[in-house]
Amino acid sequence: MKNEKQISIKEVAKMAGVSVATVSRVINNNGRFSEITRKKVMQVIKDSGYRLNMAAKSLREKKSKTIGVIVPYITNELFSEIVLGIEKFFFSIGYSVFICNTSQNPQKEMAYLRILDAKLVDGIICISGLPNIPTDVVRQDIPIVCIDRKPNFENGAYYVESDHYIGGVLATEELINSGAKKILLLTKDKSISVNQQRFDGYKAALKKHSIAFNAERIIRLPGTRSNFEEARDAINYTISKGIEFDGIFATNDWRAYGALTALLQNNIRVPQEVKLVGFDAISVSEYCYPAITTIFQDTKVLAEKAAELLYDLMRNHNKSNRPKHIIIPVSLIKRATT
Amino acid sequence: MKNEKQISIKEVAKMAGVSVATVSRVINNNGRFSEITRKKVMQVIKDSGYRLNMAAKSLREKKSKTIGVIVPYITNELFSEIVLGIEKFFFSIGYSVFICNTSQNPQKEMAYLRILDAKLVDGIICISGLPNIPTDVVRQDIPIVCIDRKPNFENGAYYVESDHYIGGVLATEELINSGAKKILLLTKDKSISVNQQRFDGYKAALKKHSIAFNAERIIRLPGTRSNFEEARDAINYTISKGIEFDGIFATNDWRAYGALTALLQNNIRVPQEVKLVGFDAISVSEYCYPAITTIFQDTKVLAEKAAELLYDLMRNHNKSNRPKHIIIPVSLIKRATT
Repeated sequence: MKNEKQISIKEVAKMAGVSVATVSRVINNNGRFSEITRKKVMQVIKDSGYRLNMAAKSLREKKSKTIGVIVPYITNELFSEIVLGIEKFFFSIGYSVFICNTSQNPQKEMAYLRILDAKLVDGIICISGLPNIPTDVVRQDIPIVCIDRKPNFENGAYYVESDHYIGGVLATEELINSGAKKILLLTKDKSISVNQQRFDGYKAALKKHSIAFNAERIIRLPGTRSNFEEARDAINYTISKGIEFDGIFATNDWRAYGALTALLQNNIRVPQEVKLVGFDAISVSEYCYPAITTIFQDTKVLAEKAAELLYDLMRNHNKSNRPKHIIIPVSLIKRATT
Repeated sequence: MKNEKQISIKEVAKMAGVSVATVSRVINNNGRFSEITRKKVMQVIKDSGYRLNMAAKSLREKKSKTIGVIVPYITNELFSEIVLGIEKFFFSIGYSVFICNTSQNPQKEMAYLRILDAKLVDGIICISGLPNIPTDVVRQDIPIVCIDRKPNFENGAYYVESDHYIGGVLATEELINSGAKKILLLTKDKSISVNQQRFDGYKAALKKHSIAFNAERIIRLPGTRSNFEEARDAINYTISKGIEFDGIFATNDWRAYGALTALLQNNIRVPQEVKLVGFDAISVSEYCYPAITTIFQDTKVLAEKAAELLYDLMRNHNKSNRPKHIIIPVSLIKRATT
């Protein structure tokens, strides 16, 4: 940053032999200009040391044309698909999207909310990894839309989620309708609402079909290793302990795949002896053998609805006529494990 | 942003009954302060409408404590693991990391480089999806480290990559040593250097073992659908055409898994009739059945080396005594398909 001349956009335009408006269009990558013009302008900018200073620009305009997305794990295919959908929506209307990965760490989530706030983004979409989203670090005038978690804002909470409860019902009923009566629930030992809702759906389906709830059949994985490994080992352990079961509802597909692997290792035929349903409909459920019946979460619609809602809030000063809570339907994808 | 009072940090400190230094520590989440102090300060900030304005701050200090990471697809496990490693390194030294997903789209890559530049990040790590990285959109004084692609900077290029050539040699020799002689290469129809290097390794290993190169055995996938699907369909087609082969080197693990699925669908025994080696060592290669022999790319070390190099360049004004090109060794993970 040393030896930097402070020259104006007018001087850049003059040197490049184009209008100020053209320089502005090139800098903002906005509107029409030829590749030759772009190269000429960029060369002048480079040679002259003119600095496109968006920080100064956003102070002036109070618009950064940037949004932030908070995500617990970009390595989770479900989340990364949602994030890509959001990115696609906003990029198409001229916005940049900064993705912030929190690894489900409260300090990171707080720090990222703070830095997004400070960098003057125009809006935030938050897929929180925490039971309580630390919203007090954000100014109240930046719109935030949450996915899968109800935020505890004082001035109202906008959030979008899949119908996890119905997903739990559909998964459990599919197992029952395929003949299963002793159904394991393979879930995570964490009090986040999505797992609780799926669990509630499981209980409701059992009740509807007059099957007694049995706490011994609820397996809560600690979440310290991968979903696949923990699920595989848990099912191996359940088999070795002699707990009887003829169906498994795994609350995500990696857990379902871990369970499937354990069943096959124990020469248990799927679906003849044990039926299996997963959740999310990520690639592994489709590509594994036998392919796993699962609950489809519509990541495309989730992303679109969240993005549209945020964009609406951004334009209408954080007050929208849209519903504050949008629930996206889920559906069953029947494959070879039921 | 309306009705916003402009008050100073001094006034915030006075209202919260703490020192200016404490307010600064809380705002920057830097140094020691109690949770009670944090809450008190944040409440005053909220009530008073004081705006922590990082844009103004970065103009003043010329340091944003932020870096940007450009990545073609966060949905690719190899890339997302590298990005998480970079994020971990920088977060631990007080930096925020903005991840920008380009979907291998030249316009997006250019736009993101430009917006990162304009937002005054202190450095950029670029995993480019393009043969030529559009570096002319970035000022020359922001250090950039590339991963897997040599950038065409005039003032010197810093980049870190796995030893793709040796990876190609190791994979092919493993197939040969397991008894394969007619080895398909399953790669992508794109002239990016990593695929070319793996291809060169394949050819070198054939030559070393006096096996004639046969262009009919090179399958180039178009890359318009998923790696899994294209590889599966290509192997099905190769079998139906009657092209003989007893080994497959797939240049990534999803392609290897697609090939494996096609082989099993055709009742071809693996590894008895056909041997298979993948590349990357992502989860699918470990968890599928039979587990796939593959080449391990050390994403942890790749991320660390790229991050360390960038941090060094950031502190030493874009001039480092470190080597400009770092090659990370790869290794073979022998599993059930060879």
